[in-house]
Amino acid sequence: MSKRIVIIGGVAGGASAAARARRLSEDAQIIVIERGPHVSFANCGLPYHIGKEIPQREKLLLHTPESLAKRFNLDVRTRTEAVAIDRNAKTVRVKDQVGAISQIAYDDLILSPGAGPIRPNVPGSNARGVFTLRDIGDMDAIIAYIDEHAVKRAAVIGGGYIGVEVAEQLACIGQKVTLVEALDQVIAPLDPEMAGILAEELRKHLTLTLMKRFERIRTDDAGQHATGVILDDQSVVEAELVILGLGVRPDVSLAKNAGLEIGKLGGIAVNEYLQTSDPHIWAVGDAVEVRHLPLEQQALIALAGPANRQGRMAADNILLPRKKSYAGSLGTAVVRVFSKIAACTGANEKQLRRLEKPYVPLYLFPGSHAGYFPGAKSIAMKLLFHPQSRTLLGAQAVGEDGVEKRIDVLATAIKGGLTIDEIAELELCYAPPVGSAKDPVNLAGMMMQNVADGLVKTVAPGDVVQAKPDDAFLLDVRSRQELDRLGRFRSAVHIPLDELRGRLDELPKDRPIHVFCQSGLRSYNAARILSHHGFDVYNVTGAATALRLFQAVANPGS
Amino acid sequence: MSKRIVIIGGVAGGASAAARARRLSEDAQIIVIERGPHVSFANCGLPYHIGKEIPQREKLLLHTPESLAKRFNLDVRTRTEAVAIDRNAKTVRVKDQVGAISQIAYDDLILSPGAGPIRPNVPGSNARGVFTLRDIGDMDAIIAYIDEHAVKRAAVIGGGYIGVEVAEQLACIGQKVTLVEALDQVIAPLDPEMAGILAEELRKHLTLTLMKRFERIRTDDAGQHATGVILDDQSVVEAELVILGLGVRPDVSLAKNAGLEIGKLGGIAVNEYLQTSDPHIWAVGDAVEVRHLPLEQQALIALAGPANRQGRMAADNILLPRKKSYAGSLGTAVVRVFSKIAACTGANEKQLRRLEKPYVPLYLFPGSHAGYFPGAKSIAMKLLFHPQSRTLLGAQAVGEDGVEKRIDVLATAIKGGLTIDEIAELELCYAPPVGSAKDPVNLAGMMMQNVADGLVKTVAPGDVVQAKPDDAFLLDVRSRQELDRLGRFRSAVHIPLDELRGRLDELPKDRPIHVFCQSGLRSYNAARILSHHGFDVYNVTGAATALRLFQAVANPGS
Repeated sequence: MSKRIVIIGGVAGGASAAARARRLSEDAQIIVIERGPHVSFANCGLPYHIGKEIPQREKLLLHTPESLAKRFNLDVRTRTEAVAIDRNAKTVRVKDQVGAISQIAYDDLILSPGAGPIRPNVPGSNARGVFTLRDIGDMDAIIAYIDEHAVKRAAVIGGGYIGVEVAEQLACIGQKVTLVEALDQVIAPLDPEMAGILAEELRKHLTLTLMKRFERIRTDDAGQHATGVILDDQSVVEAELVILGLGVRPDVSLAKNAGLEIGKLGGIAVNEYLQTSDPHIWAVGDAVEVRHLPLEQQALIALAGPANRQGRMAADNILLPRKKSYAGSLGTAVVRVFSKIAACTGANEKQLRRLEKPYVPLYLFPGSHAGYFPGAKSIAMKLLFHPQSRTLLGAQAVGEDGVEKRIDVLATAIKGGLTIDEIAELELCYAPPVGSAKDPVNLAGMMMQNVADGLVKTVAPGDVVQAKPDDAFLLDVRSRQELDRLGRFRSAVHIPLDELRGRLDELPKDRPIHVFCQSGLRSYNAARILSHHGFDVYNVTGAATALRLFQAVANPGS
Repeated sequence: MSKRIVIIGGVAGGASAAARARRLSEDAQIIVIERGPHVSFANCGLPYHIGKEIPQREKLLLHTPESLAKRFNLDVRTRTEAVAIDRNAKTVRVKDQVGAISQIAYDDLILSPGAGPIRPNVPGSNARGVFTLRDIGDMDAIIAYIDEHAVKRAAVIGGGYIGVEVAEQLACIGQKVTLVEALDQVIAPLDPEMAGILAEELRKHLTLTLMKRFERIRTDDAGQHATGVILDDQSVVEAELVILGLGVRPDVSLAKNAGLEIGKLGGIAVNEYLQTSDPHIWAVGDAVEVRHLPLEQQALIALAGPANRQGRMAADNILLPRKKSYAGSLGTAVVRVFSKIAACTGANEKQLRRLEKPYVPLYLFPGSHAGYFPGAKSIAMKLLFHPQSRTLLGAQAVGEDGVEKRIDVLATAIKGGLTIDEIAELELCYAPPVGSAKDPVNLAGMMMQNVADGLVKTVAPGDVVQAKPDDAFLLDVRSRQELDRLGRFRSAVHIPLDELRGRLDELPKDRPIHVFCQSGLRSYNAARILSHHGFDVYNVTGAATALRLFQAVANPGS
C-alpha cells in the first residue's frame, strides 16, 4: 500500500512537498526530479550574495541533494529533466544529464516547476554580460562576469521586486547602476504615489529611469559583449552588465503537453485542493493560478511563502484522509530598498479601479512607535476599504521601521475577515520603545470607522492635486511654524486650527472645502467643526504629506 | 439639546473620551476634572525620562491643560478632585485646589480614575527616598531626589512591568540597582520559563533577588531617609532610593461611595457598552473590570491601549445612535528589558492550569528572519492552544528582534477567532532581511496542526525535566558537533537523526521515548520515524532550548 510520489522541481514548493510527504509517511516512495544541479536553495537570497550582504555562498544551499536525500530518505535526481507525462500509464518520462531517457511510475505526481524569467528576443539579448537571475548558476555567472570583466556599470531592466533588489545590491558593491522601468513607478504591487517614496530613495544611490522602455542591447564591435542598453527614446545606458528583471512566466510546458488545464492567465489550473484537471496530478508554487482573495479573481502570485505552504498542503492532501483547502492568496509582500522597507497586502487601488470595484482610499503617516520616545520613524500607510461592508481590501506601507509588522497584522485581519471595527479594537503591543497606545493599525481602523459611520467625508489627495480652484476651496489648518518649516501649498488658504472657530466667515458656503493639515488629525477636527457649521467639507486623506506624494507622481521622471 | 458630559480623569482614557466627544459633537459641553496638575501625559514614558532615554521632559506632556482646552474647546479643571456623585441630581461635587467646593451637573458622566500604586503600610514606607511612580509629579520627585542626595544605589520592589522598566532605566544612568520580587519570576503575565530569559538578561546589569519578600524600609537614625530595604529573610538591600512597584489597585472610592456596582476583583463593573450600573455613568481604563477573552472571566487589565480605546468608545456610546460593544481584552503587552523584548497575549499556562482549562503548550525557537541572511536573532515562542477546537488561547515571545510583530499577529488571530489552520496559512511579509518563507507564526500554526491532527504526540519540557529515567527513555537526535558545542544532557541517549533509521534496535519498546533535538524539527522527523516503527514516542516541544529554560527555572535564585 506504499504510495509512489513523484515531485517535479526540488526547490521551495517541491522541497516542502517532499519533506512533508516523508514526515507523513515513512514508507512512501518519494522521487524528486530537479532540472538543475541544486535543490532546496534560497532563491530569494540570490541578489544578496551578489551584493556580498550574504557573504557565504553555502548559506544559500539549505540542503545539498545528498543531505536532502539522506535526511528525508528521498530519491533525489538532479540535472534531470521531466520531458513528458503519460497520464494513462501514470508515468513521467525523464532525461538525465547524459541524455539517457527513462520512465518513472507515480501514484501521485506533484508539479512544482516554478516560473522562468521573461527573456525578450531583441537584438543583443544573447550577448555576453546579459543575465537573468533565477538560480544559483545565474548568480554564480553574474558574480564571475563582474570579476572577470571588471564591470563598473550595470543596467537593471525592470523595477519589480527582483530588479529593485538586484539594483540595490549592485549599488552596494560600488557599481554605477541604472534601473530602467517602462511604467511610471517601480514595484507595481504598490500604487504610484507609494512607490514614489521608493523612487526617491533609489535616486539617492543610483540612476532611475522611469517611463522608458528597454529596446535592445548594444554590443561591442564583435557582437560578443554587451556594452549598454538602448531605450525606446534611443538614449543609451552605458553598462557592461545587464540584468533582465522583466518578470516571470509560469513554466507550464510539461503540464500543457500532458493536456492539463491551463488557466486564462497562463498558469496551471488547480482546484482548492491544489489538484490539476487530472486528480492524480497536483501543482504548487509560482506555476499555478490561485484565487486572489480581495479581488475575487484568479491571479499569478510568484512568492516563496505561498509556494512553500502549497507544497506542504499538496503532500497533506495526497497522504492524509482529510483534505485541506487552499483558501487563496493576498499577495502579501515586502521589499527592502536601501534604508526603506515597503510592504503590501491584498488589493491595490489600480486593481480595484480596473475591476471597477467600490472602495475608499485612506492615508495616514503615523510614527513607528510612540512619538515621545526617541527614534520613531514615520510610516506612510495607505488603506483601501469598503465602507458598506466595513471590510479592508488592501494595505500598503513604506517607511524605515515597523512597516512589515503593520502589514502582517492587516494581512491577518484580511485573511480572518475582521471588520474595520475589529481592526480599530485590536489589542497590540505597546511600550514606548516598541509601539503606540493607539497603534497605527488601530488608528487606521478608527479612521475607516469615521468614514464608514459618515462622521467625515474624505477626498483623495490625487483628486485634490488635480482639482481646479473653482471646484473647491483648499484650506490648510497647520500652524504658522509648520508652514515656515515645511512650505505652503500655493493654492491653499491658511487658517490654523486653533483659530478656526473664530474665523468661519472667511470660508465659502458655495463650494466644497478641502481641508488638510500635516498628519490628518487636526484637519479631521477642522472638518468636524466646519461640518457642524453647515459647510460642505472634505478631509484630505493623508494631509500635506499625501499631497506631496501626488505632486511627485505628477512628475515621475524628475 | 446639547449634552453636558463630565469626565473624571484627564489622562489616557479620560483625555481620549474628551477629544472624541468633541469630534462627535461640536456643541456638547465637555468638562474634564483632573486631580493632578497635568492632563494627557505619557504615563508609560515616565521611567524613560528618569533614565534620560527621553531627555526632554516636555515630550511627556502631550498637551498642557490650556492646549487641550483650546484644541478641543473643553472646560479643563486641573488640581480639582471629584469628591462625590449625586446620581439622583446628576451632579458631581468637586473640590478645587484652594478647597472650594462646587457642584457640576452632567447628562453623562465618564469615570476614568485609573489605578493607583499599592503602597504597603510597613515601617519606613513614608521615609524620604521611598517613591511610587504614577504621574509626572512622582517622576520629578524621583529625579530631584537622585540629584539632591547623590543617590548611587536603588532598590526596586516588584518585578512587574513598571518595576522592571524603572530598574532598567536606573541601571542605565549608573545606579547600582537591586530588583526584589517575591515570586519565582519577573513579569507575571509570562510563564516562569519564559521570564527566565529576562531574569538572565537583568542579571547582566543589576542584582535580581527572586522569591524574597520585601518586609520594611530601613531608615537613618533620624528615621527620615531610607537607607535600604529589609527582606523577609532579614537580608538588607543597601539603597538610598526605593521605588515601590508592587502593582496597582483600581481607584474606585468615588464610584463605590456613589453606590455603583463594584466587581469581584475590586474594579468598577461595566456592561459591554462600558456603562456602570447607572446608565448615565460610564467607566473606562485601569479602574474597570473587563472580560478576558481566552480566560472567559473578568480581569483587571491596567494597560494604556485598552484605556485609550475605551475612552473613545464611551464617547461614541454617549453621542452616536448606534452603540459599540467592547468585546473584551487579551492583555496584549510588551516590555523591553535591556537588549531583550518580551511580549505576550491571551492566556498563560499558569492561568489555564489554575482555571483547569484544557490546553496544550508548544515551544519554538525560530529566527527573526531567514536564517541564511545575516543578523537573524532567535525568538523564544510559547503557544497555548486547544487541539479539539483548533483555537489559540495565548502566546508569549522573548527575543531581540521581531518579537512584538509575532505577538501582534497572534493577538489579531485570537481576536479574529482564527483557527490554527488559518494561522498556518497566514500570508505574511517575506524578504530575506525581513522575514522567512515560513514565518515563525506559520511554523507555530503548522506545529499546532500536527498535534491537533494526531501526527505527533508532544511532551512538555517541564515534564521531561522532572521525569525519572524509568518513566521514559530520553533520546537526543542532534549531531555530534552540536553536542560538542552545546553540551549534552546527562540523562539522554544520543543517536543523530541521520543514523536513526539504522539504529532502531537500540531503543526500548517498553517505555515511552521522549525525543529532542536543538530546534524541534529534526526530533519531529525522528518522532515520525519511530512512530511508524511502533515506538511510543513523544516529541519534546521546544527541544534542547526549552529543556534548558526549565532547568534554569528549577533553580530560579541562581
